[in-house]
Amino acid sequence: MRDKKKQADGIRIDWKPEKKASEPLYLQIVNYFSKKIFSGDWVEGQSLPSQRRLSSLFSVNRSTIVDAMDELTSRGLIESNFGGGTRIAGNNWSLLMKGNPPDWQRYIREGSFSPNVPVVQIINHMEFEPGIIRMSTGELSPELMQTGITKRILSKLSKKDIYMNYPHPFGMPDLREVLRQELKGIGIDVPVNGILIVSGALQALQLISIGIMKPGSTAYIESPSYLRSLNIFRSAGVTQKSVPMDADGLQPWHIGQPENKQHNAVLYTIPTFQNPTGNVMSVKRRREVLRYCKNVRMPIVEDDVFCDLWLDEEPPAPMKAFDESGNVVYIGSLSKCFSPGLRVGWLAASEPVVQRLADVKMQMDYGVGVVAQQLTRELLLSGWYRKGIRTIQAGLRARRDLMMRLLARYFTGFAEWTSPPGGFFVWVRLKNRVPAERLAERALKENLLVMPGGTYGSSWSHCIRLTFGYLDEEQMTYGVKRLSEILAGMQSDG
Amino acid sequence: MRDKKKQADGIRIDWKPEKKASEPLYLQIVNYFSKKIFSGDWVEGQSLPSQRRLSSLFSVNRSTIVDAMDELTSRGLIESNFGGGTRIAGNNWSLLMKGNPPDWQRYIREGSFSPNVPVVQIINHMEFEPGIIRMSTGELSPELMQTGITKRILSKLSKKDIYMNYPHPFGMPDLREVLRQELKGIGIDVPVNGILIVSGALQALQLISIGIMKPGSTAYIESPSYLRSLNIFRSAGVTQKSVPMDADGLQPWHIGQPENKQHNAVLYTIPTFQNPTGNVMSVKRRREVLRYCKNVRMPIVEDDVFCDLWLDEEPPAPMKAFDESGNVVYIGSLSKCFSPGLRVGWLAASEPVVQRLADVKMQMDYGVGVVAQQLTRELLLSGWYRKGIRTIQAGLRARRDLMMRLLARYFTGFAEWTSPPGGFFVWVRLKNRVPAERLAERALKENLLVMPGGTYGSSWSHCIRLTFGYLDEEQMTYGVKRLSEILAGMQSDG
Repeated sequence: MRDKKKQADGIRIDWKPEKKASEPLYLQIVNYFSKKIFSGDWVEGQSLPSQRRLSSLFSVNRSTIVDAMDELTSRGLIESNFGGGTRIAGNNWSLLMKGNPPDWQRYIREGSFSPNVPVVQIINHMEFEPGIIRMSTGELSPELMQTGITKRILSKLSKKDIYMNYPHPFGMPDLREVLRQELKGIGIDVPVNGILIVSGALQALQLISIGIMKPGSTAYIESPSYLRSLNIFRSAGVTQKSVPMDADGLQPWHIGQPENKQHNAVLYTIPTFQNPTGNVMSVKRRREVLRYCKNVRMPIVEDDVFCDLWLDEEPPAPMKAFDESGNVVYIGSLSKCFSPGLRVGWLAASEPVVQRLADVKMQMDYGVGVVAQQLTRELLLSGWYRKGIRTIQAGLRARRDLMMRLLARYFTGFAEWTSPPGGFFVWVRLKNRVPAERLAERALKENLLVMPGGTYGSSWSHCIRLTFGYLDEEQMTYGVKRLSEILAGMQSDG
Repeated sequence: MRDKKKQADGIRIDWKPEKKASEPLYLQIVNYFSKKIFSGDWVEGQSLPSQRRLSSLFSVNRSTIVDAMDELTSRGLIESNFGGGTRIAGNNWSLLMKGNPPDWQRYIREGSFSPNVPVVQIINHMEFEPGIIRMSTGELSPELMQTGITKRILSKLSKKDIYMNYPHPFGMPDLREVLRQELKGIGIDVPVNGILIVSGALQALQLISIGIMKPGSTAYIESPSYLRSLNIFRSAGVTQKSVPMDADGLQPWHIGQPENKQHNAVLYTIPTFQNPTGNVMSVKRRREVLRYCKNVRMPIVEDDVFCDLWLDEEPPAPMKAFDESGNVVYIGSLSKCFSPGLRVGWLAASEPVVQRLADVKMQMDYGVGVVAQQLTRELLLSGWYRKGIRTIQAGLRARRDLMMRLLARYFTGFAEWTSPPGGFFVWVRLKNRVPAERLAERALKENLLVMPGGTYGSSWSHCIRLTFGYLDEEQMTYGVKRLSEILAGMQSDG
């Protein structure tokens, strides 16, 4: 009777280690125990036979049993019994079947990539909330989108042979060929292998930040700069240093002698319709910046995503057009000028740079979707892109002019601004150094989403970025008026 | 006469600092000098007036001039003249206009993201070379691609309202709704906000590696595992630890007690048609793995990209289907089963995890292209995806059976393998521990591209991964036969 009870409480052993296996005997025993416990065959509290008995059951030396028991104890699978024997442990395994989730908050908090700037996180989410008026958003309005053209291209593609396999690491060759021609049209002469297709300009920056930069590198940027609103460079450990601008654009002589040799520094600039100021770098300044960077052998990252959205006159040629030394990594995209949703951009640079960034991209996402690539090729080749741009420019011009009238009517006295010659942002400098963040907070309570200037550099906290690309006449009129009322309220408050 | 020459050699000053500006006087002078030099107005060798003269020209104290000259000297812009005076320096600025490119090799070498595994880099490029027979490639053949279906969907899209703006950070809501239904069909019950659209499974892994892991984290993976052929985890500083497999799949009891608390460990597995072995984890083992991970509170990353490519019988339900505790981050994709070029995948996990990974994704590329998302929604909703899969399965079955006949005919005696129940890989273990890398090298000389097993774990260097998904009958027959001849030659060489 006593023996029978003991049997029921104890574990039952039905296996022996394999003497000829390459795995050490003690480890075979550890794994056998582990498997029995994980599979639920053995449960908490069941007692183990004595070491002498185990040694005989497994036909191994006593020292092998000691090694196995030590390992099982350190793994928390067995523990000493009060009676002096050993039993299946309960400290970890009592949780069996209870289903404890991982400590996700810790995983999330400790993940190595920095979370987005809080204000940007909020805005990313608020933008999709119903009823929100997006006063600052960085994309064209759905009404300006050339859906008719896109549908036409989709219909054309539906009648052609469509490629569905993995794309070439640099992007589809026939799209790159079309882009080579397009770039030639704006003075940039690069071979097909000097072009990389990317999922928008943002990805190009991401690739640059980890492909040719490293923790401790410096990115010289305009003050204010769109780049400050991103976390990409920060997450890559890259320091951002502001370079002052004047009416001609960024002033390279403020950089001095960069610590380039140690730190893989780059100069990042949006020379045409700078984000957020709308400023255009003069031709003379473009040459000065290029000359400076040649002298210090520093690459220039030229972000030219707004170039086709000129409203008054065509902008100067990109810096890449007179870059004889291969200093410039040029970035273009369909996102700002045609469709952000397509996620198609491109990068033109020296071939080794393209090769390196393509290799990084292949490791991260195996390239840009081929339907979007084929659509882009067809769009550019058919001439429909140019036609679409003319329609968009006309629409944007009307919206800008409305915005200027509204600002003149409601913001005169409160703020200063200039009429942007292209793009879709107006940089509004509030008078009396009103804190824009407070304005944005108050505005959000009334469903007006406004990007405070501090997002683009700490010395711009009295500015706001407004857009005329997204709002229709009614929203823009309401939004600008309401914003000026909130502002008036704030000024009279304090 | 002497005065005139001096004038020509010296710089001409036509400006004065602004006493009321916020910028210090000496810095205004430094910037004025810098600008003159950069713009090319002043060139190498031109002499500067004496400090006394400069002090009077600028109407500033002598000490201000000393500060300015010190700064200009340290920036390398001016230097001492042999005659005791000071002149515009030539050490840096003599390079003016010569156009020295950045030291791109250094930038590339020092970029923080690791370059791809060399063999993978070679293969990425060789795959696009003409005349190459891709014996191991990880995608379906263009002949198996359902281009007819895709064209039909494109035509349908061309008649609908198309969305062209930025997508929601999680992906388009109506695609996520369709995916929610699809996932329900395989037993996975998640809300719409528990789904994230990604650019293929690879990107999901990239997001995980930096979003919820950190340098020092451990990823437990199968041995052999596809993950070893990637650099994503390595670049994120994550250690990969191999877990042995048996016929039922990976054996979690080998992991023991992971150092989870300190290191944000995860278990990565491909339970269905594992890459590269083709193995299917049994239902019992799926439950054991899940139970183990619950106990140690470790997340499971379940990569289920091959699930629809079953050739003999439907595979067991994914682990996510019986994950009550939210341990499993489930990854699906169209890449392996329908079209790698679309770059559309998805991830299903607890909402805070989805939110975190969406935030990281937004910072890197602003989401997946909307045309691909709309195409995927239409494809799934219309039922055409299921129809396409049945056609693909039939084609794959015929190819697999041919591969089995060819291996039986040419490889018997040289190697061992089993008939894969799904996916498109055969894992071939060479006898006599022939080094597969050498076989791959020799094969490449004859335009046969073969992936050596060492790519998937160092203890598998006597294996090769072959595919029956890519080659047509003629190529497969030629390739397998030729490979066996090379192998025979190597064995007789000794």
